[in-house]
Amino acid sequence: MLMDHQQRTKDIITEVDRSLLKYVERGRHEKLIKAMRHYPEAGGKRMRPIMAILVAEAVGKRGKEALPFGCSLELIHNFTLVHDDVIDKDPVRRGRPAVHMAYDEPTAIIAGDALFAIAYDVLASTEVDGERLRRLMRTVSNTVFLVAEGQQIDVDNEDRPAVSREEYLDMVEKKTAVLFSCAAEGGAIIGGGTEGQIADMKEYARLLGIGFQIWDDVLGIKGNIEKVGKPVGSDIRNGKRTLIVVDALERLKGDDREHVLAEALGNSSATEDQVKAAIQLLEDIGSIEHARQFALDYAARAKQLLSCLEGSEEKDMLMELVDYAVGREL
Amino acid sequence: MLMDHQQRTKDIITEVDRSLLKYVERGRHEKLIKAMRHYPEAGGKRMRPIMAILVAEAVGKRGKEALPFGCSLELIHNFTLVHDDVIDKDPVRRGRPAVHMAYDEPTAIIAGDALFAIAYDVLASTEVDGERLRRLMRTVSNTVFLVAEGQQIDVDNEDRPAVSREEYLDMVEKKTAVLFSCAAEGGAIIGGGTEGQIADMKEYARLLGIGFQIWDDVLGIKGNIEKVGKPVGSDIRNGKRTLIVVDALERLKGDDREHVLAEALGNSSATEDQVKAAIQLLEDIGSIEHARQFALDYAARAKQLLSCLEGSEEKDMLMELVDYAVGREL
Repeated sequence: MLMDHQQRTKDIITEVDRSLLKYVERGRHEKLIKAMRHYPEAGGKRMRPIMAILVAEAVGKRGKEALPFGCSLELIHNFTLVHDDVIDKDPVRRGRPAVHMAYDEPTAIIAGDALFAIAYDVLASTEVDGERLRRLMRTVSNTVFLVAEGQQIDVDNEDRPAVSREEYLDMVEKKTAVLFSCAAEGGAIIGGGTEGQIADMKEYARLLGIGFQIWDDVLGIKGNIEKVGKPVGSDIRNGKRTLIVVDALERLKGDDREHVLAEALGNSSATEDQVKAAIQLLEDIGSIEHARQFALDYAARAKQLLSCLEGSEEKDMLMELVDYAVGREL
Repeated sequence: MLMDHQQRTKDIITEVDRSLLKYVERGRHEKLIKAMRHYPEAGGKRMRPIMAILVAEAVGKRGKEALPFGCSLELIHNFTLVHDDVIDKDPVRRGRPAVHMAYDEPTAIIAGDALFAIAYDVLASTEVDGERLRRLMRTVSNTVFLVAEGQQIDVDNEDRPAVSREEYLDMVEKKTAVLFSCAAEGGAIIGGGTEGQIADMKEYARLLGIGFQIWDDVLGIKGNIEKVGKPVGSDIRNGKRTLIVVDALERLKGDDREHVLAEALGNSSATEDQVKAAIQLLEDIGSIEHARQFALDYAARAKQLLSCLEGSEEKDMLMELVDYAVGREL
């Protein structure tokens, strides 16, 4: 990434961070405010607001108008994280205790709901005409519904040994990609883009989002623990059905090495050696490389869709955002 | 209530019920759909949509346009019930197992979130101009935030022996009254009312809502178990700080009968006799009558605010709605 692009990204993040902290400083209940602020203040990549702002700027020089919209998506993202962590009983997030650990489950459920409510209030402050606001509202609502559906699929999958490739991709699309899609689509709407641009930007972000999640799964198995922020191999011990695992279970059907994976997968008390052996097996049979290539393919397709935009610094940055989402920190 | 008003109310309820079931029939996940439908299909008084529709009709003959708005509030009301029951670990609602009992806690949390998302999509379908839609969006978002704050206060109060009268009223206003306020305010906005009418309708509903909740607390202690739908005395065993209890604890300070109340209050294994004795004491010292009068006073003030409306069948029905909210089933 060019130096000035890095600086520009930093500037956007600074502004988003400041806005987020201002938005959650709401009401008179100190504990609730702290619980709402818990994740937003712990940082984050802010990819959704960055995307919304860059698209609005690239399409119609209206990046500034997309800031509240981008923040509303970031608040929604944070609300889903708070509830996800309660649901998955994850004790840690962004290197800090999860909200339900730092406070309690009731407070976490309520703080999530409150973040969601604030997100809509922030969305309503978007400086677009009323009919465009209506459209934003519908796409955001539909998106959150799909995220909920994806979360439900994810919860249900935990009890199922066999998850198909199609089911995995459907879940990833709903849990992760749709919120990116919404960011880019909304950015294009705010920027006054053509219907073609709105559709292409939505698809760009969907592909990027799926690639991002699959890359995240690869990092969860191969990454550096400090950069990834969670213990490498925890996905294996938790039995998470990532594309890597789904692919491996297909390949190993009837293979006598299947027990090496089975010993560690979903076994919370698997030894370090068992987890290492399972990861080595995933490497040996090519499932990690398969997922890596799969993500890179989505990234390449995402980039192609940017051709609907005229050349601009923001277009270049949207191109670089793909490389960041799919390709970071390996 | 006049016969034709009763019929009119029934017709509105039928239409609201039909709309609600249509709205929650969303997505492809059977279990999630069932969980979302669980409370809406179990019935309910539908007071919030009824209020929104009657106000919009009384103010500007736009009752029909207020149907989606009213339904969105009913969906929000149901979403808060689903999460409240998870938080309070209440096993029963409307005579059925609570969502988290019929399914599980993760599903209940997700179903609540999904109902909230659908509520905003329904709200976005309101046939008003974009700027009015923006205003509705802001009042709804602010309302849900206050409801969350009220729920947090309620959760925190459980660990506190002494809750003041002011704290109780603040909590009731947020947990219950603001959603009524929003219904009437939104109905007046949709109906094209003057700013004065919008403000008066909002206040009418706030007073009605507070009266409604206090009346509900009275019913919880004095009511008929079948009509109330929960075991009479459960509020006592759960240690709920109702106005009745707050008032009694003030009156009994230093009184040697205090132990009669203390034996049953918040004691989940209190005997039937202990609960009866506590209720008799609340009766004897006048705390039940105090709450009853308090609610009736709010009801009377609510009715006065209806003077901003010209005479109409709907105005009469809004008057009767007060009597229903404060005065029902004793």
